[in-house]
Amino acid sequence: MKSYNFYAGPAILPEKVLKKAQQAVGNFADMNLSILEISHRSKQFTAVMEEAEELVRSLLNLSDEYAVLFLTGGASSQFYMSAMNLLNKKAAFLDTGTWSAKSIKEAQKFGEIDIVASGKDKAYTYIPKDFNLSPDHEYLHITSNNTIFGTQWHEFPDVDIPLVCDASSDIFSRPLDLSKFGMIYAGAQKNVGPAGTTLVIIRKEMLGKVDRQIPTMLDYNTHIEKKSSFNTPPVFPIYVCMLVFRWLRENGGLEAMEAHNKKKATILYDTLDSSELFYGVVDKADRSLMNVTFKIKDDSLNDAFNQLAEENGCIGVKGHRSVGGFRASIYNAMSVEGIEKLCEVIQNFEAKYA
Amino acid sequence: MKSYNFYAGPAILPEKVLKKAQQAVGNFADMNLSILEISHRSKQFTAVMEEAEELVRSLLNLSDEYAVLFLTGGASSQFYMSAMNLLNKKAAFLDTGTWSAKSIKEAQKFGEIDIVASGKDKAYTYIPKDFNLSPDHEYLHITSNNTIFGTQWHEFPDVDIPLVCDASSDIFSRPLDLSKFGMIYAGAQKNVGPAGTTLVIIRKEMLGKVDRQIPTMLDYNTHIEKKSSFNTPPVFPIYVCMLVFRWLRENGGLEAMEAHNKKKATILYDTLDSSELFYGVVDKADRSLMNVTFKIKDDSLNDAFNQLAEENGCIGVKGHRSVGGFRASIYNAMSVEGIEKLCEVIQNFEAKYA
Repeated sequence: MKSYNFYAGPAILPEKVLKKAQQAVGNFADMNLSILEISHRSKQFTAVMEEAEELVRSLLNLSDEYAVLFLTGGASSQFYMSAMNLLNKKAAFLDTGTWSAKSIKEAQKFGEIDIVASGKDKAYTYIPKDFNLSPDHEYLHITSNNTIFGTQWHEFPDVDIPLVCDASSDIFSRPLDLSKFGMIYAGAQKNVGPAGTTLVIIRKEMLGKVDRQIPTMLDYNTHIEKKSSFNTPPVFPIYVCMLVFRWLRENGGLEAMEAHNKKKATILYDTLDSSELFYGVVDKADRSLMNVTFKIKDDSLNDAFNQLAEENGCIGVKGHRSVGGFRASIYNAMSVEGIEKLCEVIQNFEAKYA
Repeated sequence: MKSYNFYAGPAILPEKVLKKAQQAVGNFADMNLSILEISHRSKQFTAVMEEAEELVRSLLNLSDEYAVLFLTGGASSQFYMSAMNLLNKKAAFLDTGTWSAKSIKEAQKFGEIDIVASGKDKAYTYIPKDFNLSPDHEYLHITSNNTIFGTQWHEFPDVDIPLVCDASSDIFSRPLDLSKFGMIYAGAQKNVGPAGTTLVIIRKEMLGKVDRQIPTMLDYNTHIEKKSSFNTPPVFPIYVCMLVFRWLRENGGLEAMEAHNKKKATILYDTLDSSELFYGVVDKADRSLMNVTFKIKDDSLNDAFNQLAEENGCIGVKGHRSVGGFRASIYNAMSVEGIEKLCEVIQNFEAKYA
């Protein structure tokens, strides 16, 4: 029996992607070599890089104004790298939880940061939408989905400055109108692929406007010019991302994925809402379709629920250590079947303990 | 027929490692999940990280004075990161070719760099060993093996300041006395594992001596404190490195690997030296045991030789685009059989054209 992986990340991947990835570790593209030992300058891998970029462009309807990069270091590296490349004097940040706070801390090393709104007053259980920008804010940084707290922006703020967005945990989960965004970045290991690469999509005109000296590897223009191959890129992680992009296209693209994700989240939230023992912790309007956070009214039952879930092959439902409770991460590759299994566990647990 | 991969990197990996890696992409550690979709905080992956570090420590006889880190971004990222963390005012650099030059360029963004010797006068076909250091040099940076030119330090310079060393293309190819080194770094994709992680070994007392503000992800201390898991590390690349370290230990460690590498290089250099058509391009004393660079006296024959090599399953012997000719990269995992095959091709070619 395959386990259902509800971990926040690295996350579940489609079966078809895993099969193909496994083949490539044996013999890639009839080269009689593993993909782990081929040159990143071979024509076979260059084709992978090109296809990966093309698929990102077509899935998101990207114009040539945007560059698509496969970097490393995770979203945590983009916290400082975005500010290093984009921030001259002042930017606005929205604080919607742990990852926002980290992005603010790193950006403060490069300029003045106005935290224009924060959800901290209610333990980040909602997305603050009332805020004022000033004309000298160069961009507005947001976190599109808050993995730890289980909140998500469903309508992105309508502002006159470019959005810079950490979309690590919900990119490719729904269609996106990129025109509002100056930059979007995402660690791969949730909705994009395995751990080891970081996707950066950036409007090229955002670049070249800061005076500071930037190390070659930290300058987005380096990677734009060299198509993410200035030095050896993480070959295998990028290959698996490309397989995920193919899988997304074959399954109807982002519209179909959004419908799939809404269906799954609705089943799970409905189960929680109809429970007398379990409850969702987040404002209904801001509930994440990716990370469903919930608690048990009597938290002395936490260990028992966790154990029952694991016995039923539902692993990784424990909440983040900083907030407790439970969290089911239900990214693109999670099946309706997996959600139904978890709901069954919830209902069985409730029948026993409520 | 498996091809013999003579590419400079990403390089050939041991068959046993590839088999085990392939299994893990299917089902890792009986978790009923692929290693590509497990949490980096799972106890199964924590065990991998610990074993990888322990194996590095035992292979290199490292004391607790040294930290062992698995980062990302390649050696190219260490060019600036080492200077950002270590360089206050002035350091000495030895210029032994392309990669040295890049490390110099990035370090110059953080302080004054004295290039104390350079092999540029003879197109980097030798290692310059005459140089003077001054008391205000904080460290001496060297490149232990020059992948493009095919030169290698066989005896490291005996100096009073710490060596900082890019050992991307020869780490683990021979025993190393670490006491001379303040820091060693290496992109994985030559002798350590697949592309996607970068090994950094650093003497902890080297750190904390610069005043500049360092982004969290670029501070070695961040990764020391969090055992390379401050954020999601490249799970699968690190796993494969761990398998390579196991393979090294099972095959007699670095002494045995050095003997194996000397044997292979001797066979190949002897073949070149006894040829009337081919010749090695580097000073004999500085010949690399990892990257054997050679040329054909009549270079109109280059394409024909390359074709014959490929027909015989010897791929990637073309020299780096900046120097031309040929290069056989014969890292740890290259078998004696692979070398003999290449020598056979050289001799057959010579019989036909000499």
